[in-house]
Amino acid sequence: MRTEDDVLERIERARRRKPRVREQRVTSAHGAGGKATQTLVEAVFVESFRNPLLEPLGDSAELLLGDTRLAMTTDSFVVSPLFFPGGNIGDLAVNGTVNDLAVAGATPAYLSCGFILEEGFPIDDLRRIVRSMGEAAEAAGVSLVAGDTKVVGKGSGDGCYINTTGVGLLPPDRSLGIHTARPGDAVIVSGPVGDHGVTVMLARGELDIEADLVSDTACLAEPCARLLTVPGVRAMRDATRGGVATVLNEIARAAEVSVVVDEGAVPVRDEVRGACELLGIDPLYVACEGRFVAVVDGAHAEQAVSVLREHPVGAKATVIGRVGSDPAGTVLLNTAFGGTRIADLLVGDPLPRIC
Amino acid sequence: MRTEDDVLERIERARRRKPRVREQRVTSAHGAGGKATQTLVEAVFVESFRNPLLEPLGDSAELLLGDTRLAMTTDSFVVSPLFFPGGNIGDLAVNGTVNDLAVAGATPAYLSCGFILEEGFPIDDLRRIVRSMGEAAEAAGVSLVAGDTKVVGKGSGDGCYINTTGVGLLPPDRSLGIHTARPGDAVIVSGPVGDHGVTVMLARGELDIEADLVSDTACLAEPCARLLTVPGVRAMRDATRGGVATVLNEIARAAEVSVVVDEGAVPVRDEVRGACELLGIDPLYVACEGRFVAVVDGAHAEQAVSVLREHPVGAKATVIGRVGSDPAGTVLLNTAFGGTRIADLLVGDPLPRIC
Repeated sequence: MRTEDDVLERIERARRRKPRVREQRVTSAHGAGGKATQTLVEAVFVESFRNPLLEPLGDSAELLLGDTRLAMTTDSFVVSPLFFPGGNIGDLAVNGTVNDLAVAGATPAYLSCGFILEEGFPIDDLRRIVRSMGEAAEAAGVSLVAGDTKVVGKGSGDGCYINTTGVGLLPPDRSLGIHTARPGDAVIVSGPVGDHGVTVMLARGELDIEADLVSDTACLAEPCARLLTVPGVRAMRDATRGGVATVLNEIARAAEVSVVVDEGAVPVRDEVRGACELLGIDPLYVACEGRFVAVVDGAHAEQAVSVLREHPVGAKATVIGRVGSDPAGTVLLNTAFGGTRIADLLVGDPLPRIC
Repeated sequence: MRTEDDVLERIERARRRKPRVREQRVTSAHGAGGKATQTLVEAVFVESFRNPLLEPLGDSAELLLGDTRLAMTTDSFVVSPLFFPGGNIGDLAVNGTVNDLAVAGATPAYLSCGFILEEGFPIDDLRRIVRSMGEAAEAAGVSLVAGDTKVVGKGSGDGCYINTTGVGLLPPDRSLGIHTARPGDAVIVSGPVGDHGVTVMLARGELDIEADLVSDTACLAEPCARLLTVPGVRAMRDATRGGVATVLNEIARAAEVSVVVDEGAVPVRDEVRGACELLGIDPLYVACEGRFVAVVDGAHAEQAVSVLREHPVGAKATVIGRVGSDPAGTVLLNTAFGGTRIADLLVGDPLPRIC
């Protein structure tokens, strides 16, 4: 189990690295989930909020309240457009936070929601969004227990922003964490990647591309819980901002290992691949909202995949790579052409607001 | 203790009243904390999130997780300007959520924070805000354990919005609630009202008024905890959006009682009174960020006031009125001129964004 000392040591290490924000102003890259986000968090937030419980780039914090172990996580949703094929900001906001609890190994229990509405926002749109939230919460087995609504002037928002914060119950003996990945582990994705991000980009209507795609937004509580019945599960992480490649980089860095991915094994729908080629982006960096990466002891990888496939959300789960030892902190892609390339953290922000 | 049945019955009653949002679009009044906010919450949110734990207009939800009783609350902060005399959006966001837990009788423990930053926001301003949050959290004895940062395009925000969500520990036997107010109870405010709201209005620089005022933003955890050592404390509620008058109306409605306030007994600083007269607003409706209203058994009112006065934040605590029986659901003000007037919920939104 991760001790406070481990975490304090990591914070200390981050401080010694002394990340610096070189920019004087916030840029879209600071919100993209890649290198700039990581630097901002480490240089600005960790410094001031310094405490052993803060998991700066983790999915959930692990806490003790009374005698109860719980996970807590927060996420703000600023997706544009608010409605897209397969979902809207409402179910996205519920699933996103439920999933952050689920991948931490917690049983999602309660959610709060905070709305920031722009003056003039249609009440009927709000109704649709709120209804989707209620349905998504019911499907996930969580209760929306606290809310807040603020209204900002026209031009000070973009219709509707939603923050959801969730708490869930953590079994006393459960201890997952990407820092526990070790050479020989299998790396699994729970399904095709990039559907959500590409769907949202196309829904913005700025690109002259049509594709028969819907967002993958889904609740991962059930598949995560099932996967945890398999021995040797080290960590799960949902592949949202920054996509699967960002999660793999986080694993490589946290565990000081390499992650070697067989690019051809990564499930990508033809429509996603086609759109990404036209856009000049790599589907591995595109956000999903109903997919996660799991690191599992290699000996149990087959069982893990077959358990995941029993659930509709995990029907296309597959092993995409392995954890290695060298070069530590690096994600290597074995390409279809027999070459190898490094898949680093995103530096800029190639994508519009998709979550 | 409030039972699920009580809450379900209230929801049922709200449904029977069938509040309707007549507007087709969100207006600033929907965010002002008065009648329009209440209607929006009841007509749009309660309907979809229907569950016995949702306390639509309360400060915190009371929950059970494992064997632990906890309170959870959420609040988004959109104050403009971000920096004002006596504080900034950062300490406001920490104190606001800590206070919602404290007035529910919980011991604040953990906070999450979600930032929505506008592209171009100065990193140095962010640093100042984050530093204030860290200091406010330390002063309140809470840990900031989870965070999220999103960046929106220029013109889709207003510099920096912050959501904070908090959880706190609730003693098993603690049961506070404004619905428990009964005739004969004393109504206490913990200090002078309206400082925060007037300070922020003046800081916007749109009014040609100068006054030597600072925000009352403060942590209420300690004064609330001390007050709870006095027997007969029925409820506490912090007077934020909509001010003291809104809290009094909530009490009158929830408990189906009248609240009779001696207007001359309400502590208001001369500067606040003067600015409010010039602005044509009533200080009783102006937001505070470090003041609360307490309903206490009349027999213990004196003790309650003297306990509050031992703490700097409560140094000017005073009894401002009594709970009566008729007319139920109404707040009556006995004015300095010997008259009586009704202080109803705010209908419009006379004030700029102050929290």
